Amino acid sequence: MAPPRRRTAAEFQGNGGLMPPSVQVFASPCGSGGGGAVTTNGSDKSLRGKKPRGDTSVHSATKDTGRRRPAGRMPLWLVGIFVSLAFNVAALPLLLQQYIVNQPHHHHHGVISPDQQQHACAPQPGTSGATARAPSTGKPAVTSDSVINLDHGDPTMFEAFWRETGDAAELVIPGWQTMSYFSDISNVCWFMEPLFDQQVRRLHRTVGNAAVDGYHVLVGTGSTQLFMAALYALSPADADQPMSVVSTAPYYSSYPAVTDFLRSSLFRWAGDANSFVGDAYIELVCSPNNPGGAIRDAVLSSGAGKAVHDLAYYWPQYTPITRRADHDIMLFTVSKSTGHAGTRIGWALVKDREVARRMTKFVELNTIGVSKDSQLRAAKVLRAVSDGYAAAAGGATRHRLFDFGRRKMVERWRMLRQAAAASGIFSLPEETSGRCNFANETAANNPAFAWLRCDREDVEDCAGFLRGHKILTRSGNQFGADPRYVRVSMLDRDDAYDIFISRLASLK
Amino acid sequence: MAPPRRRTAAEFQGNGGLMPPSVQVFASPCGSGGGGAVTTNGSDKSLRGKKPRGDTSVHSATKDTGRRRPAGRMPLWLVGIFVSLAFNVAALPLLLQQYIVNQPHHHHHGVISPDQQQHACAPQPGTSGATARAPSTGKPAVTSDSVINLDHGDPTMFEAFWRETGDAAELVIPGWQTMSYFSDISNVCWFMEPLFDQQVRRLHRTVGNAAVDGYHVLVGTGSTQLFMAALYALSPADADQPMSVVSTAPYYSSYPAVTDFLRSSLFRWAGDANSFVGDAYIELVCSPNNPGGAIRDAVLSSGAGKAVHDLAYYWPQYTPITRRADHDIMLFTVSKSTGHAGTRIGWALVKDREVARRMTKFVELNTIGVSKDSQLRAAKVLRAVSDGYAAAAGGATRHRLFDFGRRKMVERWRMLRQAAAASGIFSLPEETSGRCNFANETAANNPAFAWLRCDREDVEDCAGFLRGHKILTRSGNQFGADPRYVRVSMLDRDDAYDIFISRLASLK
Repeated sequence: MAPPRRRTAAEFQGNGGLMPPSVQVFASPCGSGGGGAVTTNGSDKSLRGKKPRGDTSVHSATKDTGRRRPAGRMPLWLVGIFVSLAFNVAALPLLLQQYIVNQPHHHHHGVISPDQQQHACAPQPGTSGATARAPSTGKPAVTSDSVINLDHGDPTMFEAFWRETGDAAELVIPGWQTMSYFSDISNVCWFMEPLFDQQVRRLHRTVGNAAVDGYHVLVGTGSTQLFMAALYALSPADADQPMSVVSTAPYYSSYPAVTDFLRSSLFRWAGDANSFVGDAYIELVCSPNNPGGAIRDAVLSSGAGKAVHDLAYYWPQYTPITRRADHDIMLFTVSKSTGHAGTRIGWALVKDREVARRMTKFVELNTIGVSKDSQLRAAKVLRAVSDGYAAAAGGATRHRLFDFGRRKMVERWRMLRQAAAASGIFSLPEETSGRCNFANETAANNPAFAWLRCDREDVEDCAGFLRGHKILTRSGNQFGADPRYVRVSMLDRDDAYDIFISRLASLK
Repeated sequence: MAPPRRRTAAEFQGNGGLMPPSVQVFASPCGSGGGGAVTTNGSDKSLRGKKPRGDTSVHSATKDTGRRRPAGRMPLWLVGIFVSLAFNVAALPLLLQQYIVNQPHHHHHGVISPDQQQHACAPQPGTSGATARAPSTGKPAVTSDSVINLDHGDPTMFEAFWRETGDAAELVIPGWQTMSYFSDISNVCWFMEPLFDQQVRRLHRTVGNAAVDGYHVLVGTGSTQLFMAALYALSPADADQPMSVVSTAPYYSSYPAVTDFLRSSLFRWAGDANSFVGDAYIELVCSPNNPGGAIRDAVLSSGAGKAVHDLAYYWPQYTPITRRADHDIMLFTVSKSTGHAGTRIGWALVKDREVARRMTKFVELNTIGVSKDSQLRAAKVLRAVSDGYAAAAGGATRHRLFDFGRRKMVERWRMLRQAAAASGIFSLPEETSGRCNFANETAANNPAFAWLRCDREDVEDCAGFLRGHKILTRSGNQFGADPRYVRVSMLDRDDAYDIFISRLASLK
């Protein structure tokens, strides 16, 4: 076979990668502001100015209701303010200042190309952030005429769950805590917090989706870093040729980008596993697959070949847990299991000690370890998830993440299939199901991304077609597949998802 | 000139890199436990089991006094416990359990080589972390016969300062906060928290060590990631030859390791800048230098050459601030400015927008952004530092980081010079001083690392000589220099530093 053309670094330094230029679409400092209208978002921002503890119920009541009821927001906003004031009268000046400062910057929804932005209206460096008062809240709020960005798997759907859990997942970090590089020098992964290790193992035992006994747990800055670490660990240091990295198409668009962007002589992207010929390779097995959601096994087998199993989506909200996975290297991330993408924490379960040592060495050389603050936050979050399913937990106050996630995903897939049927020009993968050992019932596969095909004969570029209708998705050709397909995130907030659904249903 | 021999990946995958095998020295699950003796450390650990808020003064009173007065610890420990109990009686069962669980694992101080550890007493995977109850506390506590590890610049000296600042640097993160990948899509660095950007600029304006107006701020997972990002951004994607990366010897030992460990075709380590011949290069300028502490300027100049200024140590506790640096790319880190190494946050100040965009792209492909929890923590910490010097701050409660740091460094350098003189076989760089615009007085250069030379004729390997006396340092040959030199961290905790000083003084 002819080897696949190797992508140049220029391609990855340009538009390739995890965040295609569409991330710039919202980045419009020229976009008109929200003006003087008082919105739910405005009240949320002003509430945010006060001490965050204790006001979560106020937040969620205001925001959730606001999302579903675009009219009549003003009274709720006032209620929010007054309840907030009852809690903390002293914060009034700050609240007002916050409202005034932030209001004009809301609701960017112009479509500006990167070039236009760069030359016409780039923000002046040295001025951004000058008025920041609170932690970020992700992508700007949307309205019915906004561009809806479902290009990335930004898992903000889960915010609604965590707003209800009170202090179960709240983390307090004193100024003097975990200042050292070192967490546990008796562990291969010397920068890993023991609490994180412990909660990872506990959650896998609770869910039954992966074996942990006899495995090393390694922590990474998201599972992307651990994916690179695995390539580094599995590629011989002094081979003549780079190790070939393959995956069955359609494959996660980041695999080729992350493998090749530094043009390493240790490994290189070699395309679809099904057309690979050779003995030495690293096969990436994403199961359930991104995109598409199919359960996958390795397609190659040779003594010199290695597999890395990316199990980011092997959780009960997305797929039935049919067996306890026990592969040599398994990757997970809080981004897709609990929704905490901003925390940038992933983990690997690794059987072989030497592989674990080399993966750890990669993280050491790359970033000298992993944020301990985020490790501790992830430990707290994973603990809250396991506690929700612990036998001793109380019934009324029990918050069950996977029940929430499953309910949301079932509802969203139902909405999506109805919208596709109403439109008539789209098709979706058939629904599959299986016996879920965790839920102890038959459950459907509800993937985190829809793999949507545009069936209209005259539409060869589905992503471009949808972009014309202000829906941003990722083109099939980034996954080694037909551009008639697009990948659509199913994990955004309710308001964005609802607008997407109604727009999709109207396309003919 | 002959090009420098390129190191193979095997070398870096083996002993090269940031954490040489000496990190394993303490990693001795075979080491005997601390036994039944009640120590200051024991009480500290047990206190740590309770809710961390509100007990910082108890902590520091117990610990600081304990450090300096090795005898008579028991009464202080009891006082600590009783004061703690007065604050929180309900925590008693947890305190006792914590004490019992942790006690047997203290004081590992055997010297085990990595191989011995691996084959003889590797911890069983699947068991570590099983009893963790609290966040990590860094390297194990030391006693007078411990191996003292000053190989890494672990900045735990600063813990004592942050224990006194109460909730000024305490961070509370609700479970639902900053779950998105996105922080500010109007910023080139779209994953950066605006609060972090803001506090970085404010601190530089307070200290006057670097220009920020007209600069882009970028956040990274420590400055190491941003160093790699700069190499990526400054190396042409389609050049025939990798870009040469150089630095004047002695250079930071991580520069060659981090540059070459992935064997990128984009850039490669080319050794000492003083012996480099060519037009295209990236010169790394570390000032004050690691190791040695000297103020440095770029030594090369050509139209096609680029410089990256690593200003990790350009802060008033280490060196007089003589000018406001305004280079094209400047790197900083909280690890050395405030002591929060475990937070893994660095930042870059970058003039050129396209360079900033490409550096951001690197971080996106490498780790899809940077922990928002740690960004927010860093913002809180930097804010507390600036607040300490704000005109409006109250006098009595004002905590001034750079005053603390300067005081400690002056004292430690005085102790080190006395110890070297008492020993008679070591020499140190001469003290230099300058007018500090920040302190508004003449101040000495007090580097974060000592660059120590062993003058005894029969000692050609100073690191090996010191290791024989249970002092771990980093050999000069890792910095492109003579192995008669070693680099010694000046930033460890008081107890470890004091033992180091007394041992050093006794060597003849």
